[in-house]
Amino acid sequence: MRRRKKPGSKEKLLSHQLYLCEEPEKYKGHWNNCFDEKKPIHVELGIGRGQFITTLAELNPDIHYIGIEIKEEILLKAVEKAETKKLKNIKFLWYDVNKINDIFNQGELSRIYINFCDPWPKKRWEKRRLTHRSFLEKYKYILTENGEIHFKTDNEKLFEFSLNEFSYAGLRLNNITFDLHHGETKDPVTTEYEDKFSAMGMKIYRCEGFKEN
Amino acid sequence: MRRRKKPGSKEKLLSHQLYLCEEPEKYKGHWNNCFDEKKPIHVELGIGRGQFITTLAELNPDIHYIGIEIKEEILLKAVEKAETKKLKNIKFLWYDVNKINDIFNQGELSRIYINFCDPWPKKRWEKRRLTHRSFLEKYKYILTENGEIHFKTDNEKLFEFSLNEFSYAGLRLNNITFDLHHGETKDPVTTEYEDKFSAMGMKIYRCEGFKEN
Ligand SMILES: C[S@@+](CC[C@H](N)C(=O)[O-])C[C@H]1O[C@@H](n2cnc3c(N)ncnc32)[C@H](O)[C@@H]1O
Ligand SMILES: C[S@@+](CC[C@H](N)C(=O)[O-])C[C@H]1O[C@@H](n2cnc3c(N)ncnc32)[C@H](O)[C@@H]1O
Repeated sequence: MRRRKKPGSKEKLLSHQLYLCEEPEKYKGHWNNCFDEKKPIHVELGIGRGQFITTLAELNPDIHYIGIEIKEEILLKAVEKAETKKLKNIKFLWYDVNKINDIFNQGELSRIYINFCDPWPKKRWEKRRLTHRSFLEKYKYILTENGEIHFKTDNEKLFEFSLNEFSYAGLRLNNITFDLHHGETKDPVTTEYEDKFSAMGMKIYRCEGFKEN
Repeated sequence: MRRRKKPGSKEKLLSHQLYLCEEPEKYKGHWNNCFDEKKPIHVELGIGRGQFITTLAELNPDIHYIGIEIKEEILLKAVEKAETKKLKNIKFLWYDVNKINDIFNQGELSRIYINFCDPWPKKRWEKRRLTHRSFLEKYKYILTENGEIHFKTDNEKLFEFSLNEFSYAGLRLNNITFDLHHGETKDPVTTEYEDKFSAMGMKIYRCEGFKEN
């Protein structure tokens, strides 16, 4: 993703008080306080422009959504989508996934989405992949029992790597599909990257991993 | 595999007393009696012409190998390979994998190999695939704790299906690779089908599933 920093995007982002949680560490252990009532919490990591998570939030009012994104000018686009749709069950964090265990408590999340994360293709970069075992250990800790990780990518090598990492981390795999938009399992809610790659005729890989008791 | 039954192949096969176990049910629970001493037992299902299992037997004298194949004229080729190599740690069964639990006891096998099994592509045939959950349940029963299933195929759809089935059956996946002969994990012992498909430039998929305590 090319960095095209628009002047003032940071200020614009910070002005969206309703949607942006500025000091997320403060909510650790009581994220539901951020919303009206207690509901299962689903988090997306690296949301990009937010098409996926804002669509889900619209479709599932009984879930609380939290979107995490490190680049403010991209996050701003996502926040604006939520505002346009007047969503009440979503918050955004301008935050680095590496520090995710600083903001969620053990067992606080029901589901984590990872969509088209950066593939970091070189072997020596594999620890940076958001599906590396060290990240999965962090996610496992903050997931509830039977909590799930849903993962999509266009990158075959990253998918192969991720299946092995999920399995290594003791996450039971489920709904593995090598060609999401031409297979039996359907997932109608797409991301911006997904739309782009699908339109180019590329295959979309998907799997779920869940935490067993 | 086209059935080209040569006249007399059954008689020829049965003449190989040293390698062929004619009434395998009799050995249930004490397969090591078939060999000189007690060693871990590895079984290959649908061995075809036997290149894979006879090569393994040659390389690993401390393992007892049992090859199962339903078509006698093909099995004969495998038996002849073992004879030429004068192998002492291998037996062959002219047998149907569907009945595998009639010939092995609970926990009797350390490893099962399935290579390029018939893909049975239509949905209504999926129960016939040797990696269907009903087969995996049978295999799990006869595998030792930490016993492994090693699976290879050229068929992407069958591979996708099989990963899901392994996971469903509670077999932990390991060493998943989408392109065996161009990836990091190496497996130098190939089958006849594998050589043919690789030569045609097709990708070979491989995974292992192991039984956890
Ligand atoms: C390739 S884009 C995909 C965006 C979106 N998920 C989609 O599918 O359209 C990956 C996104 O993850 C974000 N990202 C990468 N590393 C991150 C991190 N450590 N913490 C938060 N966001 C991150 C990037 O800024 C980028 O927006
Ligand atoms: C496609 S061939 C592959 C042969 C060999 N594994 C290879 O990779 O070259 C599948 C083999 O499995 C055998 N087979 C299929 N179903 C079987 C069953 N139920 N029991 C035993 N063998 C079976 C077939 O006869 C055939 O030889």
